[in-house]
Amino acid sequence: MINNEILKILYENKDDYVSGENLASVFSISRAAISKRIEKLRLKGVNIHSVPNRGYKIISMPDFLIEESVTIGVPESQAIGNTIEVFDEIDSTNEQAKKIAKNASDGTIVAANVQTKGKGRRGREFESKKGGMYFSIILKPDVAIEEVPFITQMTACSIYKALSEMGVDTLIKWPNDIILNDKKLCGILCEMSCEIDYLSYVVAGIGINLKKVDFEEEVEKVATSLEQEGYELDNLGLFWNILKNFDYFYQKYIMHDYDEMLDILRANSYILNKDIEILTSNEIKKARSKDIDEKGFLVVEYENGDIEHINYGEVSVRKKR
Amino acid sequence: MINNEILKILYENKDDYVSGENLASVFSISRAAISKRIEKLRLKGVNIHSVPNRGYKIISMPDFLIEESVTIGVPESQAIGNTIEVFDEIDSTNEQAKKIAKNASDGTIVAANVQTKGKGRRGREFESKKGGMYFSIILKPDVAIEEVPFITQMTACSIYKALSEMGVDTLIKWPNDIILNDKKLCGILCEMSCEIDYLSYVVAGIGINLKKVDFEEEVEKVATSLEQEGYELDNLGLFWNILKNFDYFYQKYIMHDYDEMLDILRANSYILNKDIEILTSNEIKKARSKDIDEKGFLVVEYENGDIEHINYGEVSVRKKR
Repeated sequence: MINNEILKILYENKDDYVSGENLASVFSISRAAISKRIEKLRLKGVNIHSVPNRGYKIISMPDFLIEESVTIGVPESQAIGNTIEVFDEIDSTNEQAKKIAKNASDGTIVAANVQTKGKGRRGREFESKKGGMYFSIILKPDVAIEEVPFITQMTACSIYKALSEMGVDTLIKWPNDIILNDKKLCGILCEMSCEIDYLSYVVAGIGINLKKVDFEEEVEKVATSLEQEGYELDNLGLFWNILKNFDYFYQKYIMHDYDEMLDILRANSYILNKDIEILTSNEIKKARSKDIDEKGFLVVEYENGDIEHINYGEVSVRKKR
Repeated sequence: MINNEILKILYENKDDYVSGENLASVFSISRAAISKRIEKLRLKGVNIHSVPNRGYKIISMPDFLIEESVTIGVPESQAIGNTIEVFDEIDSTNEQAKKIAKNASDGTIVAANVQTKGKGRRGREFESKKGGMYFSIILKPDVAIEEVPFITQMTACSIYKALSEMGVDTLIKWPNDIILNDKKLCGILCEMSCEIDYLSYVVAGIGINLKKVDFEEEVEKVATSLEQEGYELDNLGLFWNILKNFDYFYQKYIMHDYDEMLDILRANSYILNKDIEILTSNEIKKARSKDIDEKGFLVVEYENGDIEHINYGEVSVRKKR
């Protein structure tokens, strides 16, 4: 914990040098002990400059998530991110989140730099190599089961907004993808555990491609990363920014105040007013997407003129470019 | 595994003696080895009589569930009970079932003689002392999320039918209790894990009071056991019988053939055509129960004449006796 606190102080004073003497007195340990802890942070990828008689200064934070750095930018008053578990590598952040969910508080996060068994929808694989950021948020809202599907839309809004604030204009592909320049930048997988009529918890899983990743050939055609599209963001800053926006929208969600989110979903949809195909487990239906309704469901018009509000299935766009 | 097989042979020939020589040749081990294994079964509560030159004969099976005995009465062709994990004591069979559900096959069971943290609905306690039978069935049906609530009704039908076949006439208190002589004999707790639109698995948890249990005072007034009501059943036989009926109704459920189950639910309801109170998280509503609809929902008429089909909430009966 002291290492986190040292890093926090250095980060909050990142334009200045902080003397070892000061740090030593804050934590009531020796300057030699501070020096050792600085060395440990360096080994974890934090680039810390030290100058005799002036002290320490952060040159750069690691590109990947480490336990010591993740919480630095999360305000104490914020529910989302109150606790963050970081793994350099894990099978799946959603699976780990589900393991700890029962005793975890609302807003707890499991994050990883690599997922060895990253999950897409319906048990499929989601490529999760080094170069991405993968995290799952445990939520325990007191809402009816039928309100749960909107959490996927809320998650999409949070990511859209965070990226937008950092200069990246994306589109939201209903129900669960974030699209950059016609390719998938980010996937969302929400899972829930419940009794028949009583929600235990939701896990909202997020995977974002940051660096150029050596995707499998088939994925290559449809996926991209921020780096590949020419963006160089502060990854940690993006992580904090998503949590901040998630916290903001989660408060609204709990209050059933969907308006701002619906505006975002409608104004930045990748599929609205397009000819689409809807894939369910046993059929493919052609339709035209007309709207996103007040529950976050997609309103589609089939070729025979029938209108349906759907909250299931996968959507592929038959777009004329 | 050999011990299970030995027990199975003895059980299938329970009216005769089976010679140690025969058993030794079946398993290609010595008669002394058979003798040792018989001793182990005795230590686990199986009463086995042995007569020189005649062999072994089961006098009685243990009253509680043991690993070696549970599968004996489950036909190999039956999906429900294809795999059974037995614990003498566990926190909660539903919790354990959820832990193994991902890699478990449809119909896998977790059983225990005692639950230290038995669960009722909405996280409440379900008293699970010695003298009961507690088990959870893992199900992975390919059905839509909206069909999942009926699994609670299907479970109730299976227990009702099994008890009825063994001479115990119970009533089903919608949605999840089995009632004997106006007291609760058995509780059901179904939980599910799913993506927003895709079911991963359901765990159907069952707790039945067999012997006179030293209930807490408040529970005493509303709960009973088979023993307390004067029934002396073969507990293991009851367990197998429930699995058999569950298997039967599960096949129907998967085929969307609810008719026989609905007949049972309607004909043996503890609450139909009664004045009831429906408790949801934030209110209590008075109503009269009118029917169980084709989805297994309870049809109620409120005092103002409004009709609603409910699939949630707890029901307490304001019965005039």
